[in-house]
Amino acid sequence: MNVLARGTNHPGNLALLPFSNLQKLREERPLMFVRGQGIYTFDEQGKDYIEAVSTFYCVNLGFSDEELIEAAVQQLRALPMYPSGIHRTVPVVMELAERLAAVAPVRGGHVMFATTGSEANDQLVKFTWYANRVAGEPKRRKIISRRASYHGGTIATTALGGSAALQEAFGIPTGDSLFVSHPTWPIGALPDETETAYTDRLVEELRQTIEEAGPETVAAFIAEPVSVSSGMFPPPEGYFAKIKALLDGYGIRLYADEVVTGFGRTGKMWGSETLGIEPDCISCAKGLSGAYQPISAVVMSDDFYSRLEEGANAAGIFNHGGTYGGHPVSAAVAIKVLDIYERRNILGHVQSVMPVWQKALASLEDHPLVTATRCFGMAGAVQIAPPGEGKPAAASPSLAPGGLSQQLYMAGLAAGVVVRPLQGCVVLSPPLIITEAEIGELTRRLRLALDATLAALPR
Amino acid sequence: MNVLARGTNHPGNLALLPFSNLQKLREERPLMFVRGQGIYTFDEQGKDYIEAVSTFYCVNLGFSDEELIEAAVQQLRALPMYPSGIHRTVPVVMELAERLAAVAPVRGGHVMFATTGSEANDQLVKFTWYANRVAGEPKRRKIISRRASYHGGTIATTALGGSAALQEAFGIPTGDSLFVSHPTWPIGALPDETETAYTDRLVEELRQTIEEAGPETVAAFIAEPVSVSSGMFPPPEGYFAKIKALLDGYGIRLYADEVVTGFGRTGKMWGSETLGIEPDCISCAKGLSGAYQPISAVVMSDDFYSRLEEGANAAGIFNHGGTYGGHPVSAAVAIKVLDIYERRNILGHVQSVMPVWQKALASLEDHPLVTATRCFGMAGAVQIAPPGEGKPAAASPSLAPGGLSQQLYMAGLAAGVVVRPLQGCVVLSPPLIITEAEIGELTRRLRLALDATLAALPR
Repeated sequence: MNVLARGTNHPGNLALLPFSNLQKLREERPLMFVRGQGIYTFDEQGKDYIEAVSTFYCVNLGFSDEELIEAAVQQLRALPMYPSGIHRTVPVVMELAERLAAVAPVRGGHVMFATTGSEANDQLVKFTWYANRVAGEPKRRKIISRRASYHGGTIATTALGGSAALQEAFGIPTGDSLFVSHPTWPIGALPDETETAYTDRLVEELRQTIEEAGPETVAAFIAEPVSVSSGMFPPPEGYFAKIKALLDGYGIRLYADEVVTGFGRTGKMWGSETLGIEPDCISCAKGLSGAYQPISAVVMSDDFYSRLEEGANAAGIFNHGGTYGGHPVSAAVAIKVLDIYERRNILGHVQSVMPVWQKALASLEDHPLVTATRCFGMAGAVQIAPPGEGKPAAASPSLAPGGLSQQLYMAGLAAGVVVRPLQGCVVLSPPLIITEAEIGELTRRLRLALDATLAALPR
Repeated sequence: MNVLARGTNHPGNLALLPFSNLQKLREERPLMFVRGQGIYTFDEQGKDYIEAVSTFYCVNLGFSDEELIEAAVQQLRALPMYPSGIHRTVPVVMELAERLAAVAPVRGGHVMFATTGSEANDQLVKFTWYANRVAGEPKRRKIISRRASYHGGTIATTALGGSAALQEAFGIPTGDSLFVSHPTWPIGALPDETETAYTDRLVEELRQTIEEAGPETVAAFIAEPVSVSSGMFPPPEGYFAKIKALLDGYGIRLYADEVVTGFGRTGKMWGSETLGIEPDCISCAKGLSGAYQPISAVVMSDDFYSRLEEGANAAGIFNHGGTYGGHPVSAAVAIKVLDIYERRNILGHVQSVMPVWQKALASLEDHPLVTATRCFGMAGAVQIAPPGEGKPAAASPSLAPGGLSQQLYMAGLAAGVVVRPLQGCVVLSPPLIITEAEIGELTRRLRLALDATLAALPR
């Protein structure tokens, strides 16, 4: 019965793995990880890999944190499950809500837990529609997002950002979505355009989008402070401040999707803090539990929350929830994560290794395949192109893997470093606990992979 | 920092608890559970409660199963997280897919994991639209569900079943939804209508609904084999066989939402087995891990899956997934659940206590408040009305709590038994490990609650 023991793949594709080629899955055993230690994972053959993307930007505290494991074990032994709802809950859930509200970059935060980042963003849209109906503005329901952003895999969150091709393939209704450009400074700038002029052009595009849709139909603008998964382009100077001012003029709310950027990825606790964003609501997941257990949350401002309470009081209850939203084992782990951030000073560690990280990435720019590097906090991107091609063709962010970067990804696996391939670049976001020496080893392996990719190019 | 230690509620409603009155939350500390043992939970004062609804129909194996805890601990220690995707995974995920496909009531099953029941149903709809586009039928996208069914809390699953009021409150788009009546035999029958005639009337309603919508626009019909959460009305004789025959004639798929009914609730492994349903796809969650860890899945037929593979091969990858879908710790627990079902013969135990359970519920019919009881597998409903009112006013299933049943729920808490209040009834679905003696104790406490509710009625 055990496929590991049998050492073969499922002949009939019993398991659909996400974001995979299903034909290849049928023919080729997936790469199987069986153990983790710090920033390393180990496959079935015992080979080690540096997880340079924290898998999916989530294992911020690495793979074998004894304290996180112990927090899970204690809650499992006390009470392995009790769903929160109908005025019943578990102390760890209430404690986590208080702890999270205290650190979240939202004034007067109220917390609604969910289980995944997708669910958090999905419920944020759902709550928005609810709040605006309560406020007597049922037509104010459109959500603006930036193209190629990623906000989740549910039907409603696939309608945000993503790509038109993806939405088309799944037949996703996008009637409540509005899309604007994703900043890609400096690649996306016009010839001789200054950073300020580039920002102003994006803000003007947003203004026009709102005006064309009808401002009274627009509920919110949602953005990842920095979108690692669409190419890791930090916003140009003044971007969020100007956007916030524009939105405020229309009464449109600003939401920060902190699923990837939360919990230290950008150098401070939140991307919103690093970039001076003042969101009405945030969503978070991943780093909240170091991904040891599934949990996510929406934290909303007092003003936003008051609409929910008003509607719920009229109806008798707030009629939304899910069995696994704020699972007690997940909540116990998340509390321990917040403890660890304080006690081990994770943000201080991040601040101390960030210069090393940024220097290490920049050091790759001498490689013939590398056309540029970008760095922000403990994330980065390595832009690549065949030698002689100069500026890469892909000036737009994209969630799709590209040809050359896919080859670099495969070479990385061979060299023992896992990166994420996108169009024209690979992105990186190592566990935040990475040391200076480990950054050196990561860079060494990545250079080996670049060398192997270069050597395999047709001449 | 610790609200448990402080012994107070959050003054500013920091934590929104699902399905709760938010004003009451502000004023009154929720009921807090801190420990579990078998079918019992214990609150902060040490008082014990029989969880007669398995919390939200999920802790089928009770609260303190050492083997489930140990399975989680082992995976946490080996590798606490690795998301499946991009041709990478963890052996337990592949093993669970194989084990689940082998027992699922779907021919040639293929498994896509998700994290919550809501997400499973959400992705089932998303996959349906994808499959039909690949098949050249992009307009075949409407999903038929039964009113008052519950299929999840995401925006797209709130559009299925539920209630029009709920959909209205959250501004949920329902343009791809079609609704038919939920069977409520015998309450919903016309005077002198036979069970067969009642079934035929529901099937005719379905036929008309399909015809009016245009059969070429209808993709699937989704139903919980038995919907415990909308009042636990078993389908009338011949219901699913006649529906399946009708759907087949139109090329419309049949989906069974086994989130609640899966893993033994109805007496066999699946509600589909107990009721002779042959679904194209199922969704499952809750019992899959005994709810100790969040995990859910869609299991789809080879025919359905082949469309996904066809589309994914053309696109390069199947572009869907989530970080927590098939979390390795959850997968390890789910494998252990399946082991336990086999080794401890959970289904044999269920078969042996079912007659005791059914007799115990029926024994309550002599109580002045009880107008009827319904039983199906290890679930049941106790229909109540003030004495002398006879047949209850609420003949329709509903997800909303009712006045008298809410009072019975509160009396149940006082008596140490947790039930779920609906319109005109309370529903029950105790952990499947419940013993004959424990069924007696549950019934005793429920009768105490009925007595207290009766005594408190105005005279």
